[in-house]
Amino acid sequence: MSLLVGIVGAGPAGLLLARLLHRAGIDSVVFESRDREYVERRQRAGILEQATVDTLRAAGAADRLEREGIPHDGIDLVFDGAAHRVDFLGTTGARVWIYAQTEVVKDLIALRVADDLPLLFDTPVLALTDLDGRPTVHHAGGQVVCDYVVGADGFHGVTRGLVPGVVHERTFPYSWLGILADAPPVHHELVYAHSRRGFALASMRSPTVSRLYLQVPNGTEPWPDDEIWTELDHRLGDHHPQRGPITAKSVLPMRASVAETLRHGTLFLAGDAAHIVPPTGAKGLNLAAADVTLLAAAFDHLHRTGSPDLLDAYEHTALREIWRAEHFSHFMTTTLHLAPGQSEFDTQLQLAHLRHIVSSRAAATSLAENYTGTART
Amino acid sequence: MSLLVGIVGAGPAGLLLARLLHRAGIDSVVFESRDREYVERRQRAGILEQATVDTLRAAGAADRLEREGIPHDGIDLVFDGAAHRVDFLGTTGARVWIYAQTEVVKDLIALRVADDLPLLFDTPVLALTDLDGRPTVHHAGGQVVCDYVVGADGFHGVTRGLVPGVVHERTFPYSWLGILADAPPVHHELVYAHSRRGFALASMRSPTVSRLYLQVPNGTEPWPDDEIWTELDHRLGDHHPQRGPITAKSVLPMRASVAETLRHGTLFLAGDAAHIVPPTGAKGLNLAAADVTLLAAAFDHLHRTGSPDLLDAYEHTALREIWRAEHFSHFMTTTLHLAPGQSEFDTQLQLAHLRHIVSSRAAATSLAENYTGTART
Repeated sequence: MSLLVGIVGAGPAGLLLARLLHRAGIDSVVFESRDREYVERRQRAGILEQATVDTLRAAGAADRLEREGIPHDGIDLVFDGAAHRVDFLGTTGARVWIYAQTEVVKDLIALRVADDLPLLFDTPVLALTDLDGRPTVHHAGGQVVCDYVVGADGFHGVTRGLVPGVVHERTFPYSWLGILADAPPVHHELVYAHSRRGFALASMRSPTVSRLYLQVPNGTEPWPDDEIWTELDHRLGDHHPQRGPITAKSVLPMRASVAETLRHGTLFLAGDAAHIVPPTGAKGLNLAAADVTLLAAAFDHLHRTGSPDLLDAYEHTALREIWRAEHFSHFMTTTLHLAPGQSEFDTQLQLAHLRHIVSSRAAATSLAENYTGTART
Repeated sequence: MSLLVGIVGAGPAGLLLARLLHRAGIDSVVFESRDREYVERRQRAGILEQATVDTLRAAGAADRLEREGIPHDGIDLVFDGAAHRVDFLGTTGARVWIYAQTEVVKDLIALRVADDLPLLFDTPVLALTDLDGRPTVHHAGGQVVCDYVVGADGFHGVTRGLVPGVVHERTFPYSWLGILADAPPVHHELVYAHSRRGFALASMRSPTVSRLYLQVPNGTEPWPDDEIWTELDHRLGDHHPQRGPITAKSVLPMRASVAETLRHGTLFLAGDAAHIVPPTGAKGLNLAAADVTLLAAAFDHLHRTGSPDLLDAYEHTALREIWRAEHFSHFMTTTLHLAPGQSEFDTQLQLAHLRHIVSSRAAATSLAENYTGTART
């Protein structure tokens, strides 16, 4: 059977889905409201889990990732001022890769353009109609009749609102102040720090560019550079960051959101349109990739056999993985951050949990399974 | 050197300490405000972890336990209406025993009496003086000068108040309605049930006596028997309890408490005088046994070598284990109970956590290590 999938949004979810469908011989059109330059410059997550890398490889979209991605085989957990390594590779056989979401997006756009397949920038979707049958995508330049539409246009996109159903939400009583700095990373792997002054995270974009975060109160304006470096020094234990020019500075809210309904007729939600995770577990991009991997397999199954079984199962299957990721992200967030006014009892429970993780191979393995994305239920 | 330890309280902590000290050739006197009959009838916990059984064996106090104790090699977790086994023996090599605290107390009293060693019932401690030097225990019948005193007289005892320092406390917004019934257990192992109607636990005292619990709102009066059985039926999934005469019924509050300071001069706190855990993790009695195992080894070290090093380390060493048990008890409690008014987001996080535990061997092992007491940090 012939099949045309409309994809709303050229972020990593939409672009990866388009690539996977193309490899399966299924046509798609990608509609993106912004221009190419904007999309390619958007700074987002930077950690790819094993399963996401495997998907990109299978999609033939990992050439530059293989060359430039930095594999990490574990993380450091800092608490009570001391660092403790959690070994991913040794416990699960899996690792994660440092490779920015923006680079994934560039790679997928380049492939789509090289293949001369429909990718419409500057094309906001004005309306979606006929979701009970063959859906029609209306945009300023015309309309496209599809067989299915996937909403991958993010938390602020148009498709979320077209799927009726409850959305479960949570906000957290703190934000992240994030910086990009032209400075070598603090450590060769990521450092997650619990401290009496709040959480800090030392990540990286490359061997010469650091990505660093500090827990700050909600509503905080970006701090002066000096204060940021001093505070990072306080929180990162024995890992003292080398200072360098700060090239970007922003405050990120922490929130979680899960749409209970991921389908309305022939419209399916994926990625941030379906769920938001707080960034502490590095799950946002990876969960988007997991969603579209399921959808691509479901469309492929339909295309080859005519059976909509996997499409019909998508919501149930995806939600299990979404809640797994939400739980892990929630655990990482609430175990490492200090809530305003939290009691010493709460702090001691956090420290006891962290001590258990670094002293029990089983507990470390459970964390590693979740972090590397090998804990699918 | 000669050493006399005064022990306040003839609960399991005090009696086990007296037994361990006797085996090490150290004299002690146990002071108990209640009479023997009261102490031997007090209903408390009923699950002994591997480490506690090992201690009782080493103390020569496990003869009846070996005959009558019921080893359990795992538990059932019920959620979404289905039961899933968590294997303790296969994951950790350790198990737990069903053997009521009141039986442990009877066994230890019988040994103490048979050895004709000082165990003073009906002897409330009126005052403790000279805690900076050789402490003196004052009671209605006289006074005893000791070298050290251990306060093992529980949460409502006199010794807690004599140790200055912060006590960290937490109450939970629900209680347990517990029953003893002359009915065979629901299942050959314990059943912990998460349900939309609240938590339930199916435990046992023997092959003919069930111990069953229901989460109820704080301030609840015991329900009529019929309502209890019906509600257990609703919450325990496919495990349907066989009904029988209910012989005891009570409502238990859920609280947690940790004294940050466990020593004042020559007075040390152990057991419930030092900490309370909510009962969900079955840790109260086992943590008391862990405390006095540390203290007995410390007194033995002092007695043999003259060095107070282990006694000086007691507070730090014990508190690590106490917070480990508090964290585990808190995790079991908050993952299995429904807080009043909790959101669907919270419930979905609980279910995601439970699914991860039963689908990841590592996560199941981490729970088993904690439950069996093999997770010492």
